[in-house]
Amino acid sequence: MSAPSGRLYGVGLGPGDPDLITIKSLKALQAAPVVAYFAKRGRRGHARTIVDGLLTPGVVELPLVYPVTVEIPFDSPAYREQLAAFYEEASQALAVHLRAGRDVALLCEGDPLFYGSFMHLYVRLRDDFPVTICPGVTGMSGCWTATGEPMTWGDDVLSVLPATLSQDELARRVGVADALVFMKLGRNFAKVRSVLQEAGLMERAIYVERGSMADEKVIPLTQKLDDAAPYFSIIIVPGQGRRP
Amino acid sequence: MSAPSGRLYGVGLGPGDPDLITIKSLKALQAAPVVAYFAKRGRRGHARTIVDGLLTPGVVELPLVYPVTVEIPFDSPAYREQLAAFYEEASQALAVHLRAGRDVALLCEGDPLFYGSFMHLYVRLRDDFPVTICPGVTGMSGCWTATGEPMTWGDDVLSVLPATLSQDELARRVGVADALVFMKLGRNFAKVRSVLQEAGLMERAIYVERGSMADEKVIPLTQKLDDAAPYFSIIIVPGQGRRP
Repeated sequence: MSAPSGRLYGVGLGPGDPDLITIKSLKALQAAPVVAYFAKRGRRGHARTIVDGLLTPGVVELPLVYPVTVEIPFDSPAYREQLAAFYEEASQALAVHLRAGRDVALLCEGDPLFYGSFMHLYVRLRDDFPVTICPGVTGMSGCWTATGEPMTWGDDVLSVLPATLSQDELARRVGVADALVFMKLGRNFAKVRSVLQEAGLMERAIYVERGSMADEKVIPLTQKLDDAAPYFSIIIVPGQGRRP
Repeated sequence: MSAPSGRLYGVGLGPGDPDLITIKSLKALQAAPVVAYFAKRGRRGHARTIVDGLLTPGVVELPLVYPVTVEIPFDSPAYREQLAAFYEEASQALAVHLRAGRDVALLCEGDPLFYGSFMHLYVRLRDDFPVTICPGVTGMSGCWTATGEPMTWGDDVLSVLPATLSQDELARRVGVADALVFMKLGRNFAKVRSVLQEAGLMERAIYVERGSMADEKVIPLTQKLDDAAPYFSIIIVPGQGRRP
């Protein structure tokens, strides 16, 4: 009879401030003999940076390094194939430890099941190994907290829109929501600005970078004059619903 | 010269499991000399129950007891007036401590700025007192974690819909989203079921009660045969977006 396999933990770390880690995630992180995390080549990665100073001495660190894809458009079949191969390989790297009976804590920025890279390994491993998911404070919640504005009231509809959608697709969805979060801005920034201008929402929109971190930036969209925005920045339109 | 006033803390407690409280919220909760929370008459309230065993001995507890409104329809002007008076009174109760220089931790289920009662006191107090908001894991995140299903992938649009909207309003919004969360079910349950039936989404929908708590319930909607649902239960339709 073989030893029982290890357990995979999807450890939500929240939006960036290490104090926004939950007790459950901290316990999972510090009990697992192996800690895995995604990173770009030559960098430690944001998730690993959040847990600096929180790791148990002697823990095995398992960086999962994204393939370099500079010359391939991110929406091409070639990119998808390369990424699929990477997720497959990363899953196997985790499986080696799990099969040997070692628990693995896979670090996740924000919440593991909300646009998380964790999910790509999770769906490949969940049939073979036990899994515990530790939810986290989302990145968008860190951002709306940074604005200090109540996000949704009463019967407000909240829509979370990846800015990668076309201008028409964005406009249609903006028309039937009360509170909005635009994610994945990057080079889609100008498109989102123009959707908000046409919808008459510029005065309510707020641009946020690195919400909850020491160097967070919060700028009313009307006061942001350039179109430069990192991929993980966010634009927020708080709701104005029913309130007594 | 008068003493500096106290600080109001909006303390997000997450979806119910006390281990899903963040370190920041726990610190705020345990450092404040006054802990306030909403409750219905004759009950301790869910927020207060979550922090059982976590309060600092000797802390002043300040329950904010909702007015009894059994005989008034919740969408009537009379109800709104009564609630406005209650929020005003509750704000004044907090202000007494803040003016005396005592910090007040106001407990919030989920995330304080996301459909939170906290916001009603916050907007009444923020011009007069310093405030720190501690974001939390949302109730909906506790629920989708309970299902174990990835919620949003790649370019998925997520919409959060209060089930209090009309059937037509819900249907229009369901048509332009990929992942869905229906909140505030209660007596709106049958309406949501029929919206999902017409949209052909029954097979993907999952009903969740008390996500993250010891007695959580997760039922595929096709297997839920009655229409009984507490107000804070949720129906979730996970997204199926792009993935390599």
